[in-house]
Amino acid sequence: MGLATAEEKDAALRAMAASIRSRSDAILAANAEDLAEAQAKGQIASFIDRLTLNPVRLEAIAAAVESIAELPDPVGRVLAGFERPNGLRIERVATPLGVIGVIFESRPNVTADAGALCLKAGNAAILRAGSESFRTSSAIADAMRQGLVSAGLPEDAIRLVPTRDRAAVGAMLAGLDGNIDVIVPRGGKNLVARVQEEARVPVFAHLEGLCHVFVHGKSDLDMAKGIVLNAKMRRTGVCGSAETLLVDRACAATHLKPLVAMLLDAGCAVRGDEAVQAADPRVSPATEEDWRTEYLDAVISARVVDGLDAAIAHVEHYGSHHTDSIVTEDQAAAERFLAEVDSAIVLHNASTQFADGGEFGFGAEIGIATGRMHARGPVGVEQLTSFKYRIRGSGQTRP
Amino acid sequence: MGLATAEEKDAALRAMAASIRSRSDAILAANAEDLAEAQAKGQIASFIDRLTLNPVRLEAIAAAVESIAELPDPVGRVLAGFERPNGLRIERVATPLGVIGVIFESRPNVTADAGALCLKAGNAAILRAGSESFRTSSAIADAMRQGLVSAGLPEDAIRLVPTRDRAAVGAMLAGLDGNIDVIVPRGGKNLVARVQEEARVPVFAHLEGLCHVFVHGKSDLDMAKGIVLNAKMRRTGVCGSAETLLVDRACAATHLKPLVAMLLDAGCAVRGDEAVQAADPRVSPATEEDWRTEYLDAVISARVVDGLDAAIAHVEHYGSHHTDSIVTEDQAAAERFLAEVDSAIVLHNASTQFADGGEFGFGAEIGIATGRMHARGPVGVEQLTSFKYRIRGSGQTRP
Repeated sequence: MGLATAEEKDAALRAMAASIRSRSDAILAANAEDLAEAQAKGQIASFIDRLTLNPVRLEAIAAAVESIAELPDPVGRVLAGFERPNGLRIERVATPLGVIGVIFESRPNVTADAGALCLKAGNAAILRAGSESFRTSSAIADAMRQGLVSAGLPEDAIRLVPTRDRAAVGAMLAGLDGNIDVIVPRGGKNLVARVQEEARVPVFAHLEGLCHVFVHGKSDLDMAKGIVLNAKMRRTGVCGSAETLLVDRACAATHLKPLVAMLLDAGCAVRGDEAVQAADPRVSPATEEDWRTEYLDAVISARVVDGLDAAIAHVEHYGSHHTDSIVTEDQAAAERFLAEVDSAIVLHNASTQFADGGEFGFGAEIGIATGRMHARGPVGVEQLTSFKYRIRGSGQTRP
Repeated sequence: MGLATAEEKDAALRAMAASIRSRSDAILAANAEDLAEAQAKGQIASFIDRLTLNPVRLEAIAAAVESIAELPDPVGRVLAGFERPNGLRIERVATPLGVIGVIFESRPNVTADAGALCLKAGNAAILRAGSESFRTSSAIADAMRQGLVSAGLPEDAIRLVPTRDRAAVGAMLAGLDGNIDVIVPRGGKNLVARVQEEARVPVFAHLEGLCHVFVHGKSDLDMAKGIVLNAKMRRTGVCGSAETLLVDRACAATHLKPLVAMLLDAGCAVRGDEAVQAADPRVSPATEEDWRTEYLDAVISARVVDGLDAAIAHVEHYGSHHTDSIVTEDQAAAERFLAEVDSAIVLHNASTQFADGGEFGFGAEIGIATGRMHARGPVGVEQLTSFKYRIRGSGQTRP
């Protein structure tokens, strides 16, 4: 797989998309079976929704696979090149990472998304579907493997673990005897926590997105309102949604009340410290626990802080090193926030909801990582590569 | 530490070198105690040599620390930058990796080398010295910490594990409750194997350097002789020394005998397959085990292979993905070898002994890694960094 050409890989991706479309009846029939079982088990509506496919959603899955074919080949990029005084020409060149294990829950589209991203970077993928989406994921994986075959690539470059047995997850986390190079969990916090706790191989993941917006003393109120509302309320269930609002005491007199009222009026519950409670009677008291809570809902915690240092200290103490934003017209304050907040993504005068590989121009992402090893932030096809050194000489020996 | 400026870090490195020089009497006295104990225990001569410091070696250690101050700051480098259609300016910028645990054996210079490299990249270092070099390493670590203090940086950015208790190694391998981001073992194969087997955090290392030189059918004999002799015999104890010679059947009639005779005449034992045995009566038979053996000595295994494909197959089957070289005048064959051999370093018409961070222009290296995660090949200061995304906007919200 590592030697597959860009043309072969892209042909396989287009064939996969075609195969998903031509097998849509079979995939939707498999999905109907999964749905019937989930409903019989009394799964909640949000779970059923994540599991449900229909012709529109299936077409979106196929189109997403096709769009990955349009991305530049991440393998073979010359990441650095230099010539040594002895004439050796050294290049650091991108190579596939190896075998990527993806463990996911109810969303069957991950089968296609993750398989396609891994393939694009020349990797093999071992996919473990949640048992509730097993039939749907199997049908999609069959379509993906058909696409590999029709492009002349090995069908086993994408494999779905062929069992619903939960012991298979443990075997993957142990690295399948050195045959998995990295694990990517796609799902809720319990899954990610288990993977991070038990995996014996590297993991690309974030446990939670406890994202902050800090409204600095020298901020423009209208800009702050726009960013805070978007960061919290555009979509509340995504990892880049803001969970805590920090307002600088220096602008609290002018900014706090409008910001809090705006959130409350938009249907967002606000849990605040005493100063925030005083700003609006609808605010309920925040407890220590609130600063550590990823609501993933129309709820925000809010407090007044004593300037930039206190804001950075709060983010570092309570945050999850995912995505944090400062709103300010003070360039020096912005630069300090960007430098001193140790998060995968730090923003100045922009919404935390931009934490997304698509918004970065990566085309697609397999997830967002908060670790510091290898990949950090949105993990797109470039982050699914490794590298090697290629050295060209003319007979050089080392003195 | 992550926020220390380049000037602060370089001042600390120069102060460390000065401190090592001014404390040379104390360091050499500590070394004399370690040496007395090692001799009393009957350690072998090569072990004693690795442990021994003298004024010349100590000056080399101080000079090496100073030379790291001369390298460009690896932190803050803008690794990529792009502007999105919505006006967001996104930069990927290098940041420190975190806390690096270094576990080493008898060579006390690792205390200074590893501590200085970690510091240069803004990292904290936790160093575990072999119990035999504990007094020497403690004296050097004290000098390093003194340098940190005199530059106004926290002295605990470099810590030596303050005990010879072996249980400390296990605690480090477990990651000290999430407080170690990566482990670098520096020592023999047993140490590296234990670290790779037991570590719960990422490891930058290579277990062995089973390096190959493939003399292709269309190679120049004189160039092949120069490269093979250097790759094997320049220094036989380094990880980049060649352990196996592969000769293409297409040039065996002209090249095999001179190559084998040259090695034997240079004092290198040759263990060969039947064709190589037939080339010179001094060749002894190679067993299957020889193809898997890193001799680190004046011994080489040699065989005749049927062309490029067989050579690549041999390297992939028996090699350790460290460093491999092809000698050929055939550009297409060279490109295939460089692409298809999955090693950290692949060379065309150059000696495998170039596998060294200094030879790459990295200034210094903490080791050579054969894994595919984060760092691969020589691990210099740039590979001891992570990155984050810094985004500058003007009020952007996500639609």
